Amino acid sequence: MADRETNRLEAFSDGVFAIAITLLVLDLKVPRGLHPGEQLGVKLLAEWPSYLAFLTSFATILIMWVNHHRMFTLIGRSDNRLLFYNGLLLLGITVVPFPTSLVAEYLGHEGERLAAVIFNGTYIYIAICFNLLWRTAAVRDRLLGHDADRDAVKAIFDSFRFGPVGYLVALALAFVNVTASVGLNLALAIYYALPSRTGDRR
Amino acid sequence: MADRETNRLEAFSDGVFAIAITLLVLDLKVPRGLHPGEQLGVKLLAEWPSYLAFLTSFATILIMWVNHHRMFTLIGRSDNRLLFYNGLLLLGITVVPFPTSLVAEYLGHEGERLAAVIFNGTYIYIAICFNLLWRTAAVRDRLLGHDADRDAVKAIFDSFRFGPVGYLVALALAFVNVTASVGLNLALAIYYALPSRTGDRR
Amino acid sequence: MADRETNRLEAFSDGVFAIAITLLVLDLKVPRGLHPGEQLGVKLLAEWPSYLAFLTSFATILIMWVNHHRMFTLIGRSDNRLLFYNGLLLLGITVVPFPTSLVAEYLGHEGERLAAVIFNGTYIYIAICFNLLWRTAAVRDRLLGHDADRDAVKAIFDSFRFGPVGYLVALALAFVNVTASVGLNLALAIYYALPSRTGDRR
Amino acid sequence: MADRETNRLEAFSDGVFAIAITLLVLDLKVPRGLHPGEQLGVKLLAEWPSYLAFLTSFATILIMWVNHHRMFTLIGRSDNRLLFYNGLLLLGITVVPFPTSLVAEYLGHEGERLAAVIFNGTYIYIAICFNLLWRTAAVRDRLLGHDADRDAVKAIFDSFRFGPVGYLVALALAFVNVTASVGLNLALAIYYALPSRTGDRR
Repeated sequence: MADRETNRLEAFSDGVFAIAITLLVLDLKVPRGLHPGEQLGVKLLAEWPSYLAFLTSFATILIMWVNHHRMFTLIGRSDNRLLFYNGLLLLGITVVPFPTSLVAEYLGHEGERLAAVIFNGTYIYIAICFNLLWRTAAVRDRLLGHDADRDAVKAIFDSFRFGPVGYLVALALAFVNVTASVGLNLALAIYYALPSRTGDRR
Repeated sequence: MADRETNRLEAFSDGVFAIAITLLVLDLKVPRGLHPGEQLGVKLLAEWPSYLAFLTSFATILIMWVNHHRMFTLIGRSDNRLLFYNGLLLLGITVVPFPTSLVAEYLGHEGERLAAVIFNGTYIYIAICFNLLWRTAAVRDRLLGHDADRDAVKAIFDSFRFGPVGYLVALALAFVNVTASVGLNLALAIYYALPSRTGDRR
Repeated sequence: MADRETNRLEAFSDGVFAIAITLLVLDLKVPRGLHPGEQLGVKLLAEWPSYLAFLTSFATILIMWVNHHRMFTLIGRSDNRLLFYNGLLLLGITVVPFPTSLVAEYLGHEGERLAAVIFNGTYIYIAICFNLLWRTAAVRDRLLGHDADRDAVKAIFDSFRFGPVGYLVALALAFVNVTASVGLNLALAIYYALPSRTGDRR
Repeated sequence: MADRETNRLEAFSDGVFAIAITLLVLDLKVPRGLHPGEQLGVKLLAEWPSYLAFLTSFATILIMWVNHHRMFTLIGRSDNRLLFYNGLLLLGITVVPFPTSLVAEYLGHEGERLAAVIFNGTYIYIAICFNLLWRTAAVRDRLLGHDADRDAVKAIFDSFRFGPVGYLVALALAFVNVTASVGLNLALAIYYALPSRTGDRR
């Protein structure tokens, strides 16, 4: 029964991750009504903040799904506290399309700084939730499976601890250059995603 | 075969819960076109009814998913009546984005009372469906698994019985103060979600 | 391996059913901007064609999911033909929000007849796909599980055979009274859903 | 554990495929506000580029899901590289509704060529990702299951190798006739889907 419980928690979380990542595309707006003399290519290129925001949020949600997935290969049981922190995490994940849309709309315009702060703030919130969720499961092996790989458990502690820091730097960067701040988010996600980084031990 | 049937019922229900909870974000509207002198921060803050409605519906659907999940760890078989009441429940869940959107649009404006009544009415409907679904499964152990924990079964009967009452109070409160009524919904969901409440017996 | 294949086919189909049924809510439009003297309640009531179309499509997709589910408790293997007809069926399911939206927009206005014909036509198409899918699986036991209950197999043949007929009658009724035609669709779905109908043999 | 990891990768991917294929329907726009003398039928027929683009993308995503599904019946383990290339593939799948919407909007108007190039380019990108993903799994049997059918492995190598070619031809055709180019995409998808093609060996 304990096992079934984790399965369904993962299935529900997978659903939320999958939907949030797919809803991002709704923010790639097709230009309507080309006026005479306008070119579709020019109008599409002018939408580059949408593409940057889309790519960044896609890559970030994907990495977060990988992290979630990795955590739950080690977690063997579920309890109310785990459900609670997983809920706080999913709140952050479902919200992502909103700050993404904010950045897509305001990057390069008045208000871009606030948009970037909210964008980065969402990711900091999610990174904190990951830490709370993992601590709930792994401190004193509370909910880990009996066969959980000790090295893998430690590796997650190490990588999560520094997670919020990267996003804090990106947030600070927003006060210098907003586009660079969003770009740093994308770079962080790609860096975490590159297979060479953690090797192919699995 | 009986087991597989419940699995797929849960998977389908999980899908509906996950999508309904993620679609709520579509109602967080990004302000388009800042007029000269307008500030993004001010315009975003003016959208607070959207955020309150979003948070309330997110927390409520999440708690309802936890309840659904808890019920089905005890249910071992499925029949047509269970499918029927589960369908009525899912109808309520899929509808939630609509009253949420109503409250987000009308809170603080003419029509807010009706919006809150429909919002609370949806939750009362869902709470009644939960009772019908659980009675279909658990009265005289109709569809419970052979190993269903008797204390857990009783605990669900107890908590569901008082479920509609909280929402009725919130509905009544809408005739005094609409914002307080929506806020009570949020408080109810957080109260049910707090891990300390039901302890960590699982 | 054969078993895993059917599982994933079911999981993917469940996803499509769950999303299609949940997207229907996007068509329940919140009235924007109440003019002075207008009442929210009056404006909401004027949207009754949306609610009728929503309820009808919700009930129909739910029944179709139950049918799909029932078929696949009997089907034990998968092949390319099954994937092909399942694909045609899913095409029909994903399309449902479009004719639903058409009926919601045009019921009671010029063009309602065509809207109802397209609405009913979609359901006839889906009913035909169910027949093709089931024949692919069950004629000469092509893909049935070894332990498939013969009575259940026969019951599906019987009920699917008459499926398209009900929708043809509803289509014909659209030339007499469009609202009655949509209402008949809803009545058909509720009739099929009522647990008393097929008893509680399972 | 290795097995569970692949399961969840498939479940998440299934979710993304299912949502992307279902979101396509949001691009089938219901004509709003019929002016006097206008006919709903005429207005709907004028939307044929939407229907062509919808059908093409639906059929293509469905075939791609079948391919993904087929690959993963042979893959037995997961590693970071597989997660990475699967992520690149899912990026392509989630994007599909955007070029579909572009084609639906611009086919038959100024800008249709660029729309078709982006549409075909997305499919070429996806076809390349499929090749990278499959090579990651199957070259030197890196991640294949121990019991993977050798003929099935070879058949996938053969069919994927020529995948990008068909889309390149469709891209080139866009410079001659844009509608024919989109039509060729649809024809390719139907051709791959027809059960007669690969026989019923499974």
